[in-house]
Amino acid sequence: MSLDPVRLLPMANAVRALSMDAVQAANSGHPGMPMGMADAATILWTEYLKHDPAAPDWADRDRFVLSAGHGSMLIYSLLHLSGYARPTMEDIRKFRTLGSLCAGHPENFLLDGVECTTGPLGQGLAMAVGMAIAERHLNAQFGDALVDHRTWVIAGDGCLMEGINHEAIGLAGHLKLGRMNVLWDDNRITIDGSTSLSTSEDIRARYEATGWHVVSCDGHDIADIRRALDEAVASERPSLIACRTVIGKGAPNKQGTSATHGAALGDDEIAAARAHLNWDAEPFELPEQVLSDWRESTERGAQARREWLDRASSESKREEFERRMAGDLPHGFSLDDYISGLISEPQKLATRKASEMALGEINAQLPETIGGSADLTGSNNTKAGGIGPLTADDYSGRYIYYGIREFGMAAAMNGMALHGGIIPYGGTFLVFTDYCRGAIRLSALQQARVVYVMTHDSIGLGEDGPTHQPIEHVQSLRMMPNLLVMRPADAVETAECWDIALRQKDRPTVLALTRQNLPQVRTADHARGSSEKGAYRLKSAEAARKVIFIATGSEVHLALECAARLEQDGIGADVISMVCTELFDEQDAAYREDLLPNVDPEAVLRVSIEAGTTFGWERYTMANGLNIGIDRFGASAPAEDLFEKFGFTADAIIPQIMNKLNG
Amino acid sequence: MSLDPVRLLPMANAVRALSMDAVQAANSGHPGMPMGMADAATILWTEYLKHDPAAPDWADRDRFVLSAGHGSMLIYSLLHLSGYARPTMEDIRKFRTLGSLCAGHPENFLLDGVECTTGPLGQGLAMAVGMAIAERHLNAQFGDALVDHRTWVIAGDGCLMEGINHEAIGLAGHLKLGRMNVLWDDNRITIDGSTSLSTSEDIRARYEATGWHVVSCDGHDIADIRRALDEAVASERPSLIACRTVIGKGAPNKQGTSATHGAALGDDEIAAARAHLNWDAEPFELPEQVLSDWRESTERGAQARREWLDRASSESKREEFERRMAGDLPHGFSLDDYISGLISEPQKLATRKASEMALGEINAQLPETIGGSADLTGSNNTKAGGIGPLTADDYSGRYIYYGIREFGMAAAMNGMALHGGIIPYGGTFLVFTDYCRGAIRLSALQQARVVYVMTHDSIGLGEDGPTHQPIEHVQSLRMMPNLLVMRPADAVETAECWDIALRQKDRPTVLALTRQNLPQVRTADHARGSSEKGAYRLKSAEAARKVIFIATGSEVHLALECAARLEQDGIGADVISMVCTELFDEQDAAYREDLLPNVDPEAVLRVSIEAGTTFGWERYTMANGLNIGIDRFGASAPAEDLFEKFGFTADAIIPQIMNKLNG
Repeated sequence: MSLDPVRLLPMANAVRALSMDAVQAANSGHPGMPMGMADAATILWTEYLKHDPAAPDWADRDRFVLSAGHGSMLIYSLLHLSGYARPTMEDIRKFRTLGSLCAGHPENFLLDGVECTTGPLGQGLAMAVGMAIAERHLNAQFGDALVDHRTWVIAGDGCLMEGINHEAIGLAGHLKLGRMNVLWDDNRITIDGSTSLSTSEDIRARYEATGWHVVSCDGHDIADIRRALDEAVASERPSLIACRTVIGKGAPNKQGTSATHGAALGDDEIAAARAHLNWDAEPFELPEQVLSDWRESTERGAQARREWLDRASSESKREEFERRMAGDLPHGFSLDDYISGLISEPQKLATRKASEMALGEINAQLPETIGGSADLTGSNNTKAGGIGPLTADDYSGRYIYYGIREFGMAAAMNGMALHGGIIPYGGTFLVFTDYCRGAIRLSALQQARVVYVMTHDSIGLGEDGPTHQPIEHVQSLRMMPNLLVMRPADAVETAECWDIALRQKDRPTVLALTRQNLPQVRTADHARGSSEKGAYRLKSAEAARKVIFIATGSEVHLALECAARLEQDGIGADVISMVCTELFDEQDAAYREDLLPNVDPEAVLRVSIEAGTTFGWERYTMANGLNIGIDRFGASAPAEDLFEKFGFTADAIIPQIMNKLNG
Repeated sequence: MSLDPVRLLPMANAVRALSMDAVQAANSGHPGMPMGMADAATILWTEYLKHDPAAPDWADRDRFVLSAGHGSMLIYSLLHLSGYARPTMEDIRKFRTLGSLCAGHPENFLLDGVECTTGPLGQGLAMAVGMAIAERHLNAQFGDALVDHRTWVIAGDGCLMEGINHEAIGLAGHLKLGRMNVLWDDNRITIDGSTSLSTSEDIRARYEATGWHVVSCDGHDIADIRRALDEAVASERPSLIACRTVIGKGAPNKQGTSATHGAALGDDEIAAARAHLNWDAEPFELPEQVLSDWRESTERGAQARREWLDRASSESKREEFERRMAGDLPHGFSLDDYISGLISEPQKLATRKASEMALGEINAQLPETIGGSADLTGSNNTKAGGIGPLTADDYSGRYIYYGIREFGMAAAMNGMALHGGIIPYGGTFLVFTDYCRGAIRLSALQQARVVYVMTHDSIGLGEDGPTHQPIEHVQSLRMMPNLLVMRPADAVETAECWDIALRQKDRPTVLALTRQNLPQVRTADHARGSSEKGAYRLKSAEAARKVIFIATGSEVHLALECAARLEQDGIGADVISMVCTELFDEQDAAYREDLLPNVDPEAVLRVSIEAGTTFGWERYTMANGLNIGIDRFGASAPAEDLFEKFGFTADAIIPQIMNKLNG
């Protein structure tokens, strides 16, 4: 159904009015982008986007991503006008106030129809790449009848200028994600002023160089917008639709300037805009015809959904598809037998290798995993279980060669997880979490099940030296809300960590894994499954307890060695393996008190050992504890020389303990 | 002097031999890249690069950046062959072992001639952009006689695929940095295999779209390399020189494959390579003719330096130029009068505004500052003191509109600082340190004086919500070695922090500044200059001391308010403003003990207040202290509502203190 402009323009102006009025009421926000893109967005939502407001979680809906998330009033307007249950007009009135579902930036955990949280520029588009990968992959696995949708993005100059844009469109172009269409709000204005202040790039040529189809249109000409969208839909390549727009379109005195970007227009300009747009309705009121035209536009999507339900009912794979989309693991998924095998035949292994072995089991049992690495496949040990590459020629593969694109990889994984039906994991060196930290944070904020396989987790990586040796990384990631950081000590803990990570439906996990081999510390069944408590007593004091070691990962066996030495001298020592501080902090007080009893620190000395910064370990060792760590940059040398140099030997640690005990 | 191929090829083969032998001896490293680029690098260094090994700190030398830092044996070979004092052959023999100057990746703080630390991919090229900006800027300020050099880069596919590449070349293209030339090692191999596994991009077209001049050559054809370099030198645009190479060239069985990328070739293949290259010399020995040809090649640069010294001796600006290049502040630089003015007329100001005011003074007194922002000029308050834009038409300007390129900005600032002659500062929102964290880490590792102006430093930014509100950021940056993180409480502390930051010749500073207004807490002279101790007692207990508040930035005035309430009830309370934990930790024990006396925690309660994660504050409050903070993501609402919601009010805090005191 194509309405004529006399009916369509008021529908677009409804977006403009809601946007300028809500920003004015909040006295904060970004009217320029929603007003500039109102026309293109109205055409997109009413004529192209496949969605049904009555069933926002319909698996085969098109995904819409407002990558220019500061223009949040655009999506709030579109959702309300289309008839989604929320936001109500009352929600919109409360835009940007405490408790409103209409937050400053759109949050996926607040509103149906908001597919991902956007605001940090560039990441929305990059997550959309992951959604488009997910769509093609699930299509390859489940067929056209169940999976056949598009991914739409509205992006601004900021999204295109950020470095992640290069990684994201490189991946999308390489994988020929023709179902992905990006509407670029080409308004030539940034916060600082004209885009010519900071860029001279031919964006169209750059996208074409990267394997994209590019089409341009006048973003305020309805017929031209339709032509451009039709061309984009027809292309087998991902499409950039350059919409030439006027920022703040409709505000007669301010449009086309950065003054409309990020501040309320003011009462006078809003009054002028009402006159200019022939918009008579009061703030937060909608003309009946406009509202009914908007609501009727969604019949197209509702019909598509009815047809999908019809088709789906006869699909044999439907049940499995629904399990996958619900994010439930298959009945009977278990690593128990595998772990029993490990315990019965102890091995000296790098935890990255142990992770590969666990993945061999996991990828065999879970068809929903998609692995990958940012060009460190052999180092991250991420390709396991016989999974083959996902390519433009074969989307059914389950391994992605992400290239040297850490940030793009992480954002794509967020997109896959949010699309649903997939559990993504991907690897790089732990130090390069610095390159993708913005996306890790969005995994956590968006409650996305993404597993980061971060190897080479300390000076133990050796010769590559300080640029590649994490010091502050493990602790700095532990500070991030809603993120689990796990540093397993051996193959058994590694398998347990994988099991825990896969069962977290609403939070991401970072696995910090070693390059170097580690002796197996879990050689008996007694601590089975203890990793899920975050920390557990791996060894109990034999003599009277004077010391409690708290160690992680590659330092757990060192703690055991130190404890054995102390016991020889009649000094009892517990060894606690602190696999995941966040999970430990979630345990009840009795459990925490049992491991770390609140006794006089002079009676029992707590000693943390972790080959990274000591900052923060006082939480567990208290002020008078001993913190063994590294508070400077690393160095280039073989790992064993570095552990010696930085004091990670029993010979270096024991005297410090004795000094404290006798001090 | 152009040697003929019969003399040149053995010179290039010397690079190959040293590279493969050193990697073999270390049994670790990357021979493929140095062997592949040996021919092009030999031409570059012997015929184009302006340098004098006898004076590696010559200000007008060309800058050479090995962006593909894993190929470190390339630059070690080039430095040694050219006759730099270090690395000696003994240094090279000890490649990648403890204490060797030939570290796994080239470190600027270990060797002259290594202009920057590389390894984290893409950042070398991006730092070179900063060096090229510095050159044009200093040229504009000091003239051709003193400043007239080029910036050369060798980059690999990784450097080009990383997101930061987009930001860096966008900036270079926009600023028309024609003195910048990038040799791209186009070997079509990454760690995972062929580049076709992960990319389909037309790199030449992308660079052209971004304003670059592109020229291609056969990277193993001497005449063709010369032609390409000549064309690059002649272009007024920055140039990409695509050198088609064979990775590991010279290793007859492994060349052209990823097997040569990151592992020793092995004895058999090295023997085969020696035969293939007609290289008879023993490992770590060099034929006399080869060495003398290399050493003679540097006469060109030595002559250029003699001419420069002649010219410079008659330049009136030479003394100022030398001061700038030495990194010394001008004699008499002082903010004392400005600070006295602040103390005498207290104001309620956002610290971002206070920073702008301080910059007004600083930019007037220090001609070496270059400011900028990643498209948040009006929010970061970074344009101050009447400085004008640095543009392609006027390189003398001192303000850079970096565009929406946080990572590119940070890396460019590193390049400017390392080039010398400039003190760069740049702004974005504190939360977006996540986008440029890799470069902040390299500021710290490289000991570069860069000032990060990071505003909107807490939930105090308000309505933009959780994507824009730092929680873990301040603490996570404090963990980074050799980085100062300062969170000033008012305009006086802000000025003191700027003063401290500018005086750090060998470390970077992050200033965490508020969006919201803060009352001035330093209204008298008694604490003058105390910020340099990192923490100081802003208020002493009046009644018997029972509580010590430790607060930072926007929470200091809240601590004062809480303390006043306690004093009313006869409970004495100190208030410590912890401006910079790193500087505090550097104070002597007596000073630290005076502020935080090691008394029974039940006698004196320590309370930290910071609107961010509580993780890590136990270092200062001890295990039984009270940590007021936020251990979850923020929310979208006006700032005052958020401070209330998250418990940053005296009404919320006092009962917790009383509970502890009475507990």
